[in-house]
Amino acid sequence: MTGTSIVLAEQRLPIKNLVLIIGDGMDDQQITLARNYLEGVQGRLNLDRLPVRSAVQVLSVADSDPEKVVYVADSANSATAIATGQVTSRGRIGTSAGDDRDLVSIIDLAEKAGLKTGIVTTASITDATPASFIAKVKQRECENPTMMVEALYHDRKPVDCSSDTKNKGGAGSIAEQIADSDVDLFLGGGQQHFDHLSEGKKQTVLESAESNGFYFLNKTSELNDLPVKKKVLGLFAETHLPESWSFKDNREAEKPDPSMLNYVHRYLGSVELPEPVECGVNPEYGDTPTLSQMTAAALKHLSNDNQKANDNQKGFFLMIESASIDKASHRRRTCGQLGEVKQLTEALDQALAFAEKNSDTLILVTADHGQAAQLVPDTSIFAGFDLPFYTPGYLVRVKTPEGSVMAVNYATNTLFAEEHTGVNVPLFANKTGLGKVPAMVSQPELFDLMTEHLNLR
Amino acid sequence: MTGTSIVLAEQRLPIKNLVLIIGDGMDDQQITLARNYLEGVQGRLNLDRLPVRSAVQVLSVADSDPEKVVYVADSANSATAIATGQVTSRGRIGTSAGDDRDLVSIIDLAEKAGLKTGIVTTASITDATPASFIAKVKQRECENPTMMVEALYHDRKPVDCSSDTKNKGGAGSIAEQIADSDVDLFLGGGQQHFDHLSEGKKQTVLESAESNGFYFLNKTSELNDLPVKKKVLGLFAETHLPESWSFKDNREAEKPDPSMLNYVHRYLGSVELPEPVECGVNPEYGDTPTLSQMTAAALKHLSNDNQKANDNQKGFFLMIESASIDKASHRRRTCGQLGEVKQLTEALDQALAFAEKNSDTLILVTADHGQAAQLVPDTSIFAGFDLPFYTPGYLVRVKTPEGSVMAVNYATNTLFAEEHTGVNVPLFANKTGLGKVPAMVSQPELFDLMTEHLNLR
Repeated sequence: MTGTSIVLAEQRLPIKNLVLIIGDGMDDQQITLARNYLEGVQGRLNLDRLPVRSAVQVLSVADSDPEKVVYVADSANSATAIATGQVTSRGRIGTSAGDDRDLVSIIDLAEKAGLKTGIVTTASITDATPASFIAKVKQRECENPTMMVEALYHDRKPVDCSSDTKNKGGAGSIAEQIADSDVDLFLGGGQQHFDHLSEGKKQTVLESAESNGFYFLNKTSELNDLPVKKKVLGLFAETHLPESWSFKDNREAEKPDPSMLNYVHRYLGSVELPEPVECGVNPEYGDTPTLSQMTAAALKHLSNDNQKANDNQKGFFLMIESASIDKASHRRRTCGQLGEVKQLTEALDQALAFAEKNSDTLILVTADHGQAAQLVPDTSIFAGFDLPFYTPGYLVRVKTPEGSVMAVNYATNTLFAEEHTGVNVPLFANKTGLGKVPAMVSQPELFDLMTEHLNLR
Repeated sequence: MTGTSIVLAEQRLPIKNLVLIIGDGMDDQQITLARNYLEGVQGRLNLDRLPVRSAVQVLSVADSDPEKVVYVADSANSATAIATGQVTSRGRIGTSAGDDRDLVSIIDLAEKAGLKTGIVTTASITDATPASFIAKVKQRECENPTMMVEALYHDRKPVDCSSDTKNKGGAGSIAEQIADSDVDLFLGGGQQHFDHLSEGKKQTVLESAESNGFYFLNKTSELNDLPVKKKVLGLFAETHLPESWSFKDNREAEKPDPSMLNYVHRYLGSVELPEPVECGVNPEYGDTPTLSQMTAAALKHLSNDNQKANDNQKGFFLMIESASIDKASHRRRTCGQLGEVKQLTEALDQALAFAEKNSDTLILVTADHGQAAQLVPDTSIFAGFDLPFYTPGYLVRVKTPEGSVMAVNYATNTLFAEEHTGVNVPLFANKTGLGKVPAMVSQPELFDLMTEHLNLR
C-alpha cells in the first residue's frame, strides 16, 4: 500500500503557478526614479533583489503592412505580444495585424488545460493590457456595447468596432467578452463599462456576467471574503483606479521660465526652473483597494489555500498590472509614477511571500514598453559654462526623502500627453526562474517561456 | 615525478584576466537603437547573447557636501567609482569629493599584484573615463602641463588645476601621470596633450614617456608589431579618434517645423518633421585604427601569446572604452552613436574569441551613465487625434536597413549639447561571470567584483 501511494504522488502533476507582474511603461528610467525616491540612491527595490535580470525587446508592425517594422509600441499590441506570442499592430487586442485573426492567449491555453486564471489591474479591466489577455477585438477602444457603435478615439475621432459586434459574428465588446469568459478572477476598475445593455440582450453586461457565474463585488472590505467556488468580478472604480500618490499643493509639471533676454538669443539671459515639488498620498485614493490587497486576495482565491481540499493541483496563471505608472507618465505626474511603482513592489512582496510557501511558483516582472520620463541633472552637467541650460519640455523637480532634488524631464511631445519610447524593457524573475530565463527575450519569446513553464505547449 | 608535477600545476595560480568594456553613455536606449539598426528589430547584438545581464546603479555626490546625493553623473566621477570603488563628485578623476584625497584604482592594485594592465579608448587617453583608471587630479580638464596653469572649462571658464602640479606636491597633469605610469599599454587618441614640455623638465611629455620605457606608435599598421617586452603608448589622433559613422549628405539633427497657425495655438496647424537621414562611413575616419584592431593588439600584447615562454601567468586587467557613443549623443549625431556601438560590439567579438582560448577571462560590458537620446514613435501614438504632435527638442529620423524609419529624440537641453541621464545602466558578462555577477550592483560594487575576480583584495 505504501508503494502504491508513492507512485500516485509521483504521477500527480506538480502544482505550477505563474504570476506575471506588468508595470505599464515601467522602463529603467521609471525604476531608477522609484529606487532613488523610495529606497535612496544607495538602496534597492525588491525588484533589484530578484536573482534574475533580463531584458525584453518590444515588437510592433504596421497594420497596413504587417511586414513593416514599427519601433515603438502601445500597450495593446505589446500586451498582445506577451499574451499571445504574436507580434501585431498598435491598438489591437488579441488580434493579428492586417488580417484581423483572433489570437490564442495564454489564458485561453491555461483554461483549456484546467488551470485557474486571474487578472488584477489598477486600470479598468477593459483597458488594453488586461484586455489583451482575454479579449479579441480590432481596436482597444471597443470597451463596451455602446462603444461598439460609437467608440471615439480619445473622445475625438470615431473608431470602427463594428466587425467585432456579435451581430457580425464577433465576440462583442471587451466588457462583454469578460462577462462571457471563464476567467476565475478579475479585480480592477471599469464599472462604467458594465452598466450598458449587452448587445442583443435585456440585461446589462454586469448582469450577463452574474448569469455566467461571476460573483460581483465593489468594496475593498469584500476582498477578504471571496466565495471559494465562484468566479469573481471586482470593480472598484468607474474607470481606472486613482493613482495612490500625487503632487502636494496642486502642483503640476511646468516648463522652465527663461528671461526676456533669452528669447532674443538662447545663449543670453537666464532661466528660472520650477520650484521643487513634494509627493504625498493622493486625497482621492480613499478606500480604493491597493494593488497589494487585490494581489493577496487573488493569490488566495486562485490557490484556494483557504480550503482543506486543494482543488487546484494544476496551478494558475495570474496577471497583475500596475497600470498607472504609464498613465501618470503620459500626464507628467512624477509623484503618480513613483506611487504606482511602489504599488507594484508591494504586490511583488505578496507574490514573493506566496512563492516562499509554493516553491514552483514562477514570478516574472516586466514592462510592456518604455515611457518618456527621464531622470536629468538638476544642475546641468554643463553648469560650468554659466549659460541658461534648460529642457525645452516639461520639468518636475521632486524633493527626495534623502534630502536632494531629483529632476525629471518630459519632452517627447508639446501637447497633452507624452509619447512611449521603444527602449527594451527590464524582465525580472524570482529564484524559480534561475536557469529558465535567458538574458534577453522578445515579447513573443516571453510568451513561449511562460507557456513552457505551465506545460501549455 | 608525475605526482610532483601535478602538485606544482595545482599550486600555480590560475591565469585570471579581466576585460572591462565601457560604452560611454551606452544605456538601454542606445543599445536598442543599435540593435534595431545593426541587426534588425528581431535580431540580437552579441551583447544580447551574453549569458549574464545585470544592471548598475550610478552614484554621485556633491563636492561641496559629499553627504549630499546627486542623481546624475558625468564620466569622470562614474569612471572613478568603477575604477576605485569610491563615490565622488562630477569632474573628479581618481580623487575624493570635498577633501581631494587620491584614490587607489584597480590598475594600481593590479600593477602591485604583478598583473599586466592596459587602456584602450576611442577618446584621448587623457579623457575622463581612461584617466580615472590611472590618474588622480581634482578636475578632468587638467589634461596636460599647459592646462595645469590655464585649463578652461570647455574653453570658457578657468579651472584651477594648481593643487595637482608637481610644484605643489601633486602628480602633475593627466598626460604626465600617464607618461610616469607603469601601465603596460595605452592605445587611443590625444597626441596633442603629449607635445607640451613636462612640468620642470626640458623634455615633452611624450619624451618623458619614452624615457620611462614606453614605445610610441601612431600608425595603425604598427599595431601588428608591438615590441613584446616594452610598455606601449599608441596615439592615433591629436584629440579623440573620429566617429566611424556619420550622417550622409551633411545632414544633422533638426527641430520639427510647425506651420504658422501652430504658433498661434499649439493645437492648431500642422508640423513638418525633418526628412529621414541615412548613415554612412565617416569620410574623416581614414586609416584610424578601429576599436577592434586596438583591442586585438592589446589582448595579444598583454597576454604575450606571441611568445613561447608565457611570462603572464598572473593575468591582466584591460579597460576598453567606446567613448564616442556619448560624444555623438551629446551632439545629436545618431549615426555616430550607432557606429560607435558597432565598434564596441566588434571589440567584444575580439574579447570573446580571446576568452574562448583563455577560459578564466572575465569579460564585463557596461556603461558609465545614461544619455539623452530616446527612441520615439515616428508616427505619434496619438496620431488618431489628428493634431500637430512633435517633440520640442531635436529629432533625427534614421532610415534603417530593414526598410523602416527610427525616430530619435534629443530634448534635455536647448543649447549645444544634450545632458546625461541618471538611469541605471546595463551590465553584461560572458560565461565566466555566471554565478559571479549579481542581478544588480552599484558602481563601487562593480569595483569589488572585479578586484575579487583578480584576487586583488
